[in-house]
Amino acid sequence: MRDVFQQELREVQDRLVEIAELVVISIENATTAFNESDVRLADEVIADDDRIDTLALALDELAIEILARQQPVARDLRIVVSTLRISASLERMGDLAEHIAQLARYRFPEKVVPASLRPTFTEMGRLDVEIARKLADLLRTQDVDLAEAIRTEDDRVDELHAGVFAEVLGASWKGEASDTVDATLASRYHERFADHAVSIAKKVRYLATGDWSSSDGA
Amino acid sequence: MRDVFQQELREVQDRLVEIAELVVISIENATTAFNESDVRLADEVIADDDRIDTLALALDELAIEILARQQPVARDLRIVVSTLRISASLERMGDLAEHIAQLARYRFPEKVVPASLRPTFTEMGRLDVEIARKLADLLRTQDVDLAEAIRTEDDRVDELHAGVFAEVLGASWKGEASDTVDATLASRYHERFADHAVSIAKKVRYLATGDWSSSDGA
Repeated sequence: MRDVFQQELREVQDRLVEIAELVVISIENATTAFNESDVRLADEVIADDDRIDTLALALDELAIEILARQQPVARDLRIVVSTLRISASLERMGDLAEHIAQLARYRFPEKVVPASLRPTFTEMGRLDVEIARKLADLLRTQDVDLAEAIRTEDDRVDELHAGVFAEVLGASWKGEASDTVDATLASRYHERFADHAVSIAKKVRYLATGDWSSSDGA
Repeated sequence: MRDVFQQELREVQDRLVEIAELVVISIENATTAFNESDVRLADEVIADDDRIDTLALALDELAIEILARQQPVARDLRIVVSTLRISASLERMGDLAEHIAQLARYRFPEKVVPASLRPTFTEMGRLDVEIARKLADLLRTQDVDLAEAIRTEDDRVDELHAGVFAEVLGASWKGEASDTVDATLASRYHERFADHAVSIAKKVRYLATGDWSSSDGA
């Protein structure tokens, strides 16, 4: 019974990694679509989001089946419950990548943000991609150093997010209202994407170390 | 054992209602703070959010304890798992009320949005309050007609959200960049608040009727 449970946990872990890898592809494509006004890639991100949603839902069903069949307690129970939380956050990260892609689509053939903000968004996009990659690695390896690296990169995303508002609200901002709307939404989506990664990283760190203090829920 | 479980489920339900009622107070106060630039009320919302977070975390711990102790299966298991999802959404609704209150705080003594948008935001706020009240009633009574009413009101919030963008991007918009940023964020927060209520309502509806088709996960 115990062996079966361990095998099921490995299956759960594999599926989390699979979803995280799709999220990596989505944010890579969303970032490129956003930077280069690539509508074809934007459409791909939008289509891929359904696949992420379907896989997340199937994983939730598997987790519930495992709870019913294996009746885990203590740490095993927390692992399974955490799976439900992690899949919900990954699903949300997919939504946010889709929102970023949609901004590129709405604005085509124009670029989403004016030239003055492009370096900032290029860097935010690069960081979100890097964070997603580290997150997939963290889920695969349980190497908690990656959790720390994700948190550091999230701090940098938060700084850039604040920088976007400083620029948009500054005296030298010449953007139209539509530029201001796009910059506001795009910045918020990038920031939330990184936040979800931090939230997942905390849970994985907790499960790997048993240190509950820095986690915000199983 | 079964009686103990039923009693524990009632405890879980009471706690969900308790948190939902705090969310009602938060969105009421956030809406008033937003409409009337009331900084004292905004601070109250910000302080109350800690209480919501603490109660949600405690409820999650209780749900995990119930899973460990009662080893529920089938519908009982889904009820407990749904509790974890519902508490996460309620916690997020509290965050969004806090974000709305923070906008009022940042802009004080100015109002958050220019006069032309105030009726729209007053109506969005009124709907969010109404949705939160119905959600607390739904959690208390499991009356699924309320789930339908919440969905209808969410559709109206979505229309108003689209209307904010139409106004901000329209030729007659005279707002500063800061007005555009505030309107964009405030509209997004109001819309997400209602979305979370719909997501919870679907779960309650599923649990009450067993009809899984319109739900998006236990």
